[in-house]
Amino acid sequence: LAVAAKRMIEKDGASIVVVLGMPGKEPIDKQCAHEASQGIMQAQLMTSTPILEVFVHEDESDDPMVLASVFLNRSRSHARNAYWMLFEPEQLAKRAGQGVRQGFTNAGPLEGN
Amino acid sequence: LAVAAKRMIEKDGASIVVVLGMPGKEPIDKQCAHEASQGIMQAQLMTSTPILEVFVHEDESDDPMVLASVFLNRSRSHARNAYWMLFEPEQLAKRAGQGVRQGFTNAGPLEGN
Amino acid sequence: LAVAAKRMIEKDGASIVVVLGMPGKEPIDKQCAHEASQGIMQAQLMTSTPILEVFVHEDESDDPMVLASVFLNRSRSHARNAYWMLFEPEQLAKRAGQGVRQGFTNAGPLEGN
Amino acid sequence: LAVAAKRMIEKDGASIVVVLGMPGKEPIDKQCAHEASQGIMQAQLMTSTPILEVFVHEDESDDPMVLASVFLNRSRSHARNAYWMLFEPEQLAKRAGQGVRQGFTNAGPLEGN
Amino acid sequence: LAVAAKRMIEKDGASIVVVLGMPGKEPIDKQCAHEASQGIMQAQLMTSTPILEVFVHEDESDDPMVLASVFLNRSRSHARNAYWMLFEPEQLAKRAGQGVRQGFTNAGPLEGN
Repeated sequence: LAVAAKRMIEKDGASIVVVLGMPGKEPIDKQCAHEASQGIMQAQLMTSTPILEVFVHEDESDDPMVLASVFLNRSRSHARNAYWMLFEPEQLAKRAGQGVRQGFTNAGPLEGN
Repeated sequence: LAVAAKRMIEKDGASIVVVLGMPGKEPIDKQCAHEASQGIMQAQLMTSTPILEVFVHEDESDDPMVLASVFLNRSRSHARNAYWMLFEPEQLAKRAGQGVRQGFTNAGPLEGN
Repeated sequence: LAVAAKRMIEKDGASIVVVLGMPGKEPIDKQCAHEASQGIMQAQLMTSTPILEVFVHEDESDDPMVLASVFLNRSRSHARNAYWMLFEPEQLAKRAGQGVRQGFTNAGPLEGN
Repeated sequence: LAVAAKRMIEKDGASIVVVLGMPGKEPIDKQCAHEASQGIMQAQLMTSTPILEVFVHEDESDDPMVLASVFLNRSRSHARNAYWMLFEPEQLAKRAGQGVRQGFTNAGPLEGN
Repeated sequence: LAVAAKRMIEKDGASIVVVLGMPGKEPIDKQCAHEASQGIMQAQLMTSTPILEVFVHEDESDDPMVLASVFLNRSRSHARNAYWMLFEPEQLAKRAGQGVRQGFTNAGPLEGN
């Protein structure tokens, strides 16, 4: 994923990349996901270009219907975030610190704030 | 966070960056926080510019009021540290090795010193 | 593995590399495999060239016959993927998101999709 | 620590740097120490300059007097090592493989040698 | 270790480096060994030069005589490998996939092969 994203930035001139993946639930799958995330982080730093990682972990739910809806939800939110980052960054500033999450319901801001 | 901080340094000429985040308490959140920290470390090394990471972990307290006050406290201390690093580095030298912490009370110096 | 793959790309002009390995089942073996994977990730990013990692972990099965067949299977699939990446990328696009795995049977797509 | 050491090498022309730190005993402290160590490793590799990391972990002893004496001891040994690396490298060659440790008593060479 | 190996490659023109180390058995020793391995990996990638890591972990055996003999054995095998890599690479190709190990007895090839 990381090298593919880096190539899209370098060779196709992408200003932002959204990568999608669904890591399995075994320990080895989790380690691969961790390595993928580290690679995506490095690809971002090497290119100074944001790469949004949309991972839905197979063990976030036992129900495939729920997983599919989380995936849809999360991909949509990140696609919208990608759009905002490029064209309406003020939309993101407005939402910072409000506990807005992608995929399930939001966590909300700290009540003590 | 890391790539955003790196862009502020490269494109906006920032001399120091303070990044704020509140990692959740699930294992996957902790792993993401770890990856973010590694990215911030790399961004610092690539730019030779300090990036102060202010993370309050959701499980540092069960009480949202406490969390909010730790966050306020820690952000203030780091913002002051950022100022000192740029304009009054002798303030930091004075405090080194004294067990000064950000967010809760200080640990204090080793008594055997 | 990583540095050997990087040298093949740099010195022999390889457009893609497939690396094969069989990590043992002890914790220290797993850590070495993790370090190898991180190195392969970095080699890919440094060269912007894909390196396909084909690892069969010794503890994926107790039966050496099964291990050997998984290895054969997985190596073949990755070799075919390498060919597709270079010459028929549309073959991969067609299979994305369908839960196609290498080595054992496929996971299949999410039913809720 | 890592970026400060890198700046001393790049901007102040240091030939070697000794960094001191005392990581706390909580899991999050240990992770931060791990990230710091990785950063120090990268700073060394990026500058091809040695950075000696002197960490005393808060849980190496329950007694602050012991911790303070370990810290003193270990800092002294590393400062001496830094001097030897630059000016008398043969002193280090003589001690290699002899199980010489910094802070507590030495481990000694393998008896079977 | 990593930076010393990198300097030997850069400054002394080494074509291959063999590094020797004996990590202790405490968790903190294991983490240091992991960080050292990651550094050695990075040094290899940065220089595109092989660095053979010969680590004997203190907990591979309780008997110092055994440890010493493993160390001797493993160092010899790696030194021979280093020689082969430079001057007789066909020797390594012949042994690939045969489960040849350094230090203890060999694992042997998969029977199902």
